[in-house]
Amino acid sequence: MEYNHVTPAVVADLEAIVGAKYVWTDRDKKIPYGQDEGTGPACLPDVVVLPASAEELAAVVRLANDAVIPVIPRGTGTGLEGGAVADSRGGIVVSTERMDRIVEINEDAMYMVVQAGVITARIQEEARKRGLLYAGDPCSGDCCCIGGNGATNAGGNRAVKYGTTRDQIYAIEVVTPTGQIAHLGKRLHKMTAGYPLEKIVIGSEGTLGIITELTLKLVPLPRATAHVLAVFPSPETALALVTALPKAGITPTCLEFMDYDVISVVQDWLKEKQPCPAGGAYMIIQLDSSRDETLDDDCVTVDEVCRRLGAVDVFMADADKVWKARKAFTEASAADCPVAAMEDFVVPPDRLLPFMERLRDLGQALGVVFRGVSHAGDGNIHLDVLRKGFADEGDEKQKVAAFEDKACQAAYELGGAISGEHGIGQARKALFAKYTDPVELALMKAVKQAWDPKNILNPGKIFD
Amino acid sequence: MEYNHVTPAVVADLEAIVGAKYVWTDRDKKIPYGQDEGTGPACLPDVVVLPASAEELAAVVRLANDAVIPVIPRGTGTGLEGGAVADSRGGIVVSTERMDRIVEINEDAMYMVVQAGVITARIQEEARKRGLLYAGDPCSGDCCCIGGNGATNAGGNRAVKYGTTRDQIYAIEVVTPTGQIAHLGKRLHKMTAGYPLEKIVIGSEGTLGIITELTLKLVPLPRATAHVLAVFPSPETALALVTALPKAGITPTCLEFMDYDVISVVQDWLKEKQPCPAGGAYMIIQLDSSRDETLDDDCVTVDEVCRRLGAVDVFMADADKVWKARKAFTEASAADCPVAAMEDFVVPPDRLLPFMERLRDLGQALGVVFRGVSHAGDGNIHLDVLRKGFADEGDEKQKVAAFEDKACQAAYELGGAISGEHGIGQARKALFAKYTDPVELALMKAVKQAWDPKNILNPGKIFD
Repeated sequence: MEYNHVTPAVVADLEAIVGAKYVWTDRDKKIPYGQDEGTGPACLPDVVVLPASAEELAAVVRLANDAVIPVIPRGTGTGLEGGAVADSRGGIVVSTERMDRIVEINEDAMYMVVQAGVITARIQEEARKRGLLYAGDPCSGDCCCIGGNGATNAGGNRAVKYGTTRDQIYAIEVVTPTGQIAHLGKRLHKMTAGYPLEKIVIGSEGTLGIITELTLKLVPLPRATAHVLAVFPSPETALALVTALPKAGITPTCLEFMDYDVISVVQDWLKEKQPCPAGGAYMIIQLDSSRDETLDDDCVTVDEVCRRLGAVDVFMADADKVWKARKAFTEASAADCPVAAMEDFVVPPDRLLPFMERLRDLGQALGVVFRGVSHAGDGNIHLDVLRKGFADEGDEKQKVAAFEDKACQAAYELGGAISGEHGIGQARKALFAKYTDPVELALMKAVKQAWDPKNILNPGKIFD
Repeated sequence: MEYNHVTPAVVADLEAIVGAKYVWTDRDKKIPYGQDEGTGPACLPDVVVLPASAEELAAVVRLANDAVIPVIPRGTGTGLEGGAVADSRGGIVVSTERMDRIVEINEDAMYMVVQAGVITARIQEEARKRGLLYAGDPCSGDCCCIGGNGATNAGGNRAVKYGTTRDQIYAIEVVTPTGQIAHLGKRLHKMTAGYPLEKIVIGSEGTLGIITELTLKLVPLPRATAHVLAVFPSPETALALVTALPKAGITPTCLEFMDYDVISVVQDWLKEKQPCPAGGAYMIIQLDSSRDETLDDDCVTVDEVCRRLGAVDVFMADADKVWKARKAFTEASAADCPVAAMEDFVVPPDRLLPFMERLRDLGQALGVVFRGVSHAGDGNIHLDVLRKGFADEGDEKQKVAAFEDKACQAAYELGGAISGEHGIGQARKALFAKYTDPVELALMKAVKQAWDPKNILNPGKIFD
């Protein structure tokens, strides 16, 4: 597809739709919209547009279709893979930041209707004030927006128990790739009436539609929370917990794994001896319940299961103490060595151990050093590949690429995937294309082509 | 699309694929495949084919594409809306009944891989033997098959707590409309890597693909179960429980509503006085837990909430006693009066009361008498429209149609839909088309058209 750039005439049309104040062609104003939290260099769009409503946004998309100009939907730009950034084709970045209204909160029926630009932490806080929980909880919650959470199917800290963003959403209002407004999904607990299209628009990284409004599920705020640190003599014994806990009827809210390498780096950084034997591993377990008694019973079960698997210590303590080492990791690791690449693999939780063994072997074979922490409960591993031991930039680039390719292959061979929560964006699309079932990939592209015949909406994201 | 009928040459080709023994053109053998559990007259396909594998099934679909012949996928034919039955175009009914192998059961990682033709009750039983629960539980579980459950996103008794069939499925193997084999979904707890196409194939009633194998979630078998019957002075007070229980942190496994009309019919049939005041209503509440103590606490909470809402009696008793009236309903109602139509509306649970009031007013205005029971916990209402008070068959047909249309309109106005679990099939497609958001409907049809350009797979189902 040959795209056009934004001309002064198009700018005038955009100004007529959203008002001149909200159409930015000025370089300085565009710069923050030319990047995300990933590491790529800025790539500026032709123009940034800030519509005030779904209707205005739909008119922008219709205009882009007529003029054959790419539209790049953007929340607050906290992504890591270039999904909300223009590529060399330029185009129109459409930011949802002005659509930041909480439309409705129903405490009895436990739902909230919000516009796409509402910051996630505000949703959590409005729910909390009413004794309710919005369970979505990406790590960037205080600055990301809910439309972006929906577009990327954001995961985060509580996904083990509550699922990802897709699981928190009843329904969405969406601007389609051709600029129509669709209402997908309903506030229902069951339905069999056609195809639940909201489920594929959510997580489509803005390629199948721009989410403008969301109806979110709320649940009662847990009244009791416990934080447990279990120290194991080895990664093997620790990782056995990932299947043993659910089997024992325990669904933790968080289940985080740290190996001895990671613990050592944190120990040096914190200058505080960690209670972990050499070669050992931590499991951090957060439990939530509606009742103190149930929580106490759950803690007893967790303690029993950990000790049965060989835990050398099981602490129950306040959150700060238990989470201290985990929360220090990013800072400690960055202080120790710069990061060459960040990875986001996911495998079935019971296959974490073989996957970690494959990664270790790969790192040794390729001369790549990495550290990783894992949202073990949902099989999601974040690796920091370290800028360490490479001859030069070219050597680093080549070895990191080889490691990513082979690690990705290992993930798929074990039934996993290239991304648990960061998405594909621009950065991962080559590996995604290489390792996805070709029939599945063709079916995905057929949906995209059918809904977006001119490939206007976020071209070059997920797929080439 | 002009379709062709099955010629002797096509039959020979089908025989070459699956073996002559499994290609049936004989009228007597085809008759059971020309109907479902709904009330329509039999409509025979040209041929019934029973492949032994996904590969054979895919070859049949490729042949049908080349010859432009409809393919109608079929499980055990327990549907109600004609989804697994040929229409006047004839074609090839493909039954998955020979694909009935349990491929893998992993007790530790709690999943089961099964072929599409496995009977649902067998899956439940194999799980139960291992201390695990397969949570899908359609009412026809002892004779329906899991592929059909997936194709229709079957609901059933435990959907309040565990969700519908879609929620029980990690991954599916699918024969696409053009006869390729795709593997959709993965045994993962989180993933953001393209579009989760399995979610739209599940529930597509065989229009987007034929499910040949499923990877199912299992959970620990609850160790403690309680059955509660709460008697309320009015439908209003009873239905308040639907939002009050989740708000109190209780997720019942079942939450069933019966009004006084229904209770009276059952009372006459059972010849047993029911403990319900005139104008009152029942709520049947099933609670499951992994622990006796937690269950006891839950029962106390349920009792408190029911009494706070005005319940005149709350019994905790054995299952037979509590469920007796509910289970007698179908037989009691049919004995009292033949059924002219069965409905399957769904609305947000908190809108059940206004929906029931709209239905009552509609019935009175149109001269239509009905009885209904509700899976209240998930907002799903099944109505028996009675063959009562009509002048003749034409009068019945016209009034029932008018009632269905207006009831459907009311459901959509309240945020609901035409079907909670029965699906659209052939029987509901006119109302589905009338009340679905036209933009949404066009997007659905675009997916179908893109994946199935010749409209080979189950044409005339869901859409015209």
